[in-house]
Amino acid sequence: METDASFKVALSDVVVANRILALEGVLDAFGHCSVRDPRNPNRYLMSRSLAPALVTADDIVQHDLDNNAMSHPGQKLYYERWIHGEIYKSRPDVNAIVHSHSPTVVPFASTKAPLRPLLHNAAFLGFGTPVFEIRNFIPDSDLMISSAALGKALAEALGPTAQVVLLRGHGNVVVGPTMEIAVYRAYYTEINARQQMNAMTIGPNDVVYMNPGECTTTDKIMQASAERPWNLWKRKVQREMRRAAAEDAI
Amino acid sequence: METDASFKVALSDVVVANRILALEGVLDAFGHCSVRDPRNPNRYLMSRSLAPALVTADDIVQHDLDNNAMSHPGQKLYYERWIHGEIYKSRPDVNAIVHSHSPTVVPFASTKAPLRPLLHNAAFLGFGTPVFEIRNFIPDSDLMISSAALGKALAEALGPTAQVVLLRGHGNVVVGPTMEIAVYRAYYTEINARQQMNAMTIGPNDVVYMNPGECTTTDKIMQASAERPWNLWKRKVQREMRRAAAEDAI
Amino acid sequence: METDASFKVALSDVVVANRILALEGVLDAFGHCSVRDPRNPNRYLMSRSLAPALVTADDIVQHDLDNNAMSHPGQKLYYERWIHGEIYKSRPDVNAIVHSHSPTVVPFASTKAPLRPLLHNAAFLGFGTPVFEIRNFIPDSDLMISSAALGKALAEALGPTAQVVLLRGHGNVVVGPTMEIAVYRAYYTEINARQQMNAMTIGPNDVVYMNPGECTTTDKIMQASAERPWNLWKRKVQREMRRAAAEDAI
Amino acid sequence: METDASFKVALSDVVVANRILALEGVLDAFGHCSVRDPRNPNRYLMSRSLAPALVTADDIVQHDLDNNAMSHPGQKLYYERWIHGEIYKSRPDVNAIVHSHSPTVVPFASTKAPLRPLLHNAAFLGFGTPVFEIRNFIPDSDLMISSAALGKALAEALGPTAQVVLLRGHGNVVVGPTMEIAVYRAYYTEINARQQMNAMTIGPNDVVYMNPGECTTTDKIMQASAERPWNLWKRKVQREMRRAAAEDAI
Repeated sequence: METDASFKVALSDVVVANRILALEGVLDAFGHCSVRDPRNPNRYLMSRSLAPALVTADDIVQHDLDNNAMSHPGQKLYYERWIHGEIYKSRPDVNAIVHSHSPTVVPFASTKAPLRPLLHNAAFLGFGTPVFEIRNFIPDSDLMISSAALGKALAEALGPTAQVVLLRGHGNVVVGPTMEIAVYRAYYTEINARQQMNAMTIGPNDVVYMNPGECTTTDKIMQASAERPWNLWKRKVQREMRRAAAEDAI
Repeated sequence: METDASFKVALSDVVVANRILALEGVLDAFGHCSVRDPRNPNRYLMSRSLAPALVTADDIVQHDLDNNAMSHPGQKLYYERWIHGEIYKSRPDVNAIVHSHSPTVVPFASTKAPLRPLLHNAAFLGFGTPVFEIRNFIPDSDLMISSAALGKALAEALGPTAQVVLLRGHGNVVVGPTMEIAVYRAYYTEINARQQMNAMTIGPNDVVYMNPGECTTTDKIMQASAERPWNLWKRKVQREMRRAAAEDAI
Repeated sequence: METDASFKVALSDVVVANRILALEGVLDAFGHCSVRDPRNPNRYLMSRSLAPALVTADDIVQHDLDNNAMSHPGQKLYYERWIHGEIYKSRPDVNAIVHSHSPTVVPFASTKAPLRPLLHNAAFLGFGTPVFEIRNFIPDSDLMISSAALGKALAEALGPTAQVVLLRGHGNVVVGPTMEIAVYRAYYTEINARQQMNAMTIGPNDVVYMNPGECTTTDKIMQASAERPWNLWKRKVQREMRRAAAEDAI
Repeated sequence: METDASFKVALSDVVVANRILALEGVLDAFGHCSVRDPRNPNRYLMSRSLAPALVTADDIVQHDLDNNAMSHPGQKLYYERWIHGEIYKSRPDVNAIVHSHSPTVVPFASTKAPLRPLLHNAAFLGFGTPVFEIRNFIPDSDLMISSAALGKALAEALGPTAQVVLLRGHGNVVVGPTMEIAVYRAYYTEINARQQMNAMTIGPNDVVYMNPGECTTTDKIMQASAERPWNLWKRKVQREMRRAAAEDAI
């Protein structure tokens, strides 16, 4: 049955996404990846509350768009799951979401320096890199998206076209039409941040960024190219998982 | 017997703490981790003088708060053990201490630039990041905390509320109510230092730091979250130890 | 037969080149290496469209200088293969080419700060480090060299003597008389970029670069030394390939 | 026989030194380590021309202080061996020498920014960090120490008390009374360079360096501590060597 096959792919994809981004240093012990349920656009698939590097298919919980568990009763859910439901509600074009504390993106979230598209792989940054300042909503918060209201405010900050939103003092959220593309974008958001910081160091007044036309053209071809790093990373992840399993079996 | 069980946990925790921080690059061949003895608040557990990456349960010596060995007679003790006894004396809320040469923290210890909380995981930096200048106590010293008097002066610099004190030209000391939380804080002190340095590079005049209210709120929830990275790191450490043992057995 | 032996060496070299530069972080999932066919100077050898870390001898396609596949019919070719044919046409001294998104070189490609020879291993930078600005040829492009015309313009930017050309917002192309030397140069272009960025940080106004005479003298001896790192890296790559094969066989 | 035992130790030490510094990223495919022959102060032990990561006991050649091979006839020797003989001649206190292209030290060698002792482990930098400018001796050179005259000029730049000399555009030479201490110093020269660069980034005008009295006091105790990282690194190296041997045997 087609629906079942696409569900199995989605399940595998969200596990692989967690493992890839943990291995590549975009996710640490925190953060999460989700994918819209291909069987029902009002549901999404995401791990129970767990470090990304440890997620397996058995940990993937079906959530409704109000972020309630529709499977795995009694499991602890991510504290910031509100990010996911609210973005899936407001952005029908989005089928996958990554929330991370991507290390070199945090400095951009915490200064007035805007993150801008420098490297062609990060053309999607040209569609906007808004910064969400939680202080405008709650004073003295824990900086986390811990309610439907904050989730909604974050989705509004992301707006209708951006593919990334930065969270001051905290991290970022990256979206895409597929899990592969969201992972690709989460990775190259980090790489672009590093290269932009380096460019600002060596030539603070003359950095050349991609212009809007270049971003539109380039993003199209990059979306079509996201499969290549995905497949490469997936092999690394599968090897890592086999190695860990073999070692745990000693 | 409860006391024995808690002692076994403390023993395991202090070994794991050493291994985690060595693996994550916070500790090099020097530095040390200690935990207050759960059986007796006037004792603490810490390795004999040994590189953190090599510490095993057999190396853990019980020290009194004057830093004398109460077990393992004849073993060489850490040259800077005075850090531990004096802080345990002055801070009953502290049950675990990490001393490291955390690489990106040293630059903050050696300039007037204060280390400040930028990333939510490092909210505890909001309770103070004093710098201990040993020159105010001894001229031409070896920069190390090699006496009870220096240990006491350092504990006074740490004061009643800070969770970190920086040592000029040397490193830092991080404390916490549990070993897990002290390790968490030692790790995120390094991460915050890197991200703050990067933020100062891209936006020297407009870095947004966490405010006191945010720090208080966030530190509470982060203390409750310290278990997640601990468990992830512990698995890595256990795998590393098994791998090393297997290789040494070839 | 001599021709056959040299072909086998070229085939092995281009595979090893891809693997080395992927392992050393110069190539990510994109980029490519080629070598002029020793049997026919109007042909070159390069992988079909594939991540460099996965390239094997079976994937190496013979291309003519108009970048058509002369073997492996039906295989997808690299989108930017035009880089190779046009440079081989215009530069008879060039027998090997590397195109990468070398991470620390991109910032130099995207600012007015010229990449200059700082480290003796990178003496070849003294022969020129032109930046190719695709906007001068096509507005709103995807920044990639996706046609014969762009390949030709890039070859003209490289000119008759430079060994490196930078592509704004994208990466760089490095050339050499042998695959070993092109790999050596691709690696030390990245290392020089890092060291130059660091030098500009600590002494922005007084960096001492190599002068033209030093570059000429040093490049000669460095070309003769390229074999040493090549052999070291090749061992690493071979070990990596054996390890992966063993793990995949579990 | 005592002499033989000390020779075996020296032989093992120089191999281990090469492997440690390659593993820790201080040496790349180039650079070399030597130790004065304990049987004869007018001889030193150093590998034939070989990448440091590949050096074994069989490759160690006895050199006289004019840098002629006294064993292993017909083997190719290091192009820059002149560094060693001339320093052993002029500095009887020196029993071990490391020459590397330590990546973060090169920027200090290529600007007017002096490398200064920031971190207590690098107290020896307080005895001087002269920069050798080869242009003052030979115009248009290959920047390398390729003759007795240049070796002598370098030894003079090092002078009677410094433990490090920087080579513009090239690298550095570190010395010590034992191989362990020379390796310790080569490692912490790199670490200090990174931390000093970071300190200059966050507080360009107010970096606090160690003063001369602190350097003298601290260097003494650090020399006595060099054994700890050496033993830790040696275990890593031995494991690496066993792993490589096992893999090569598949």
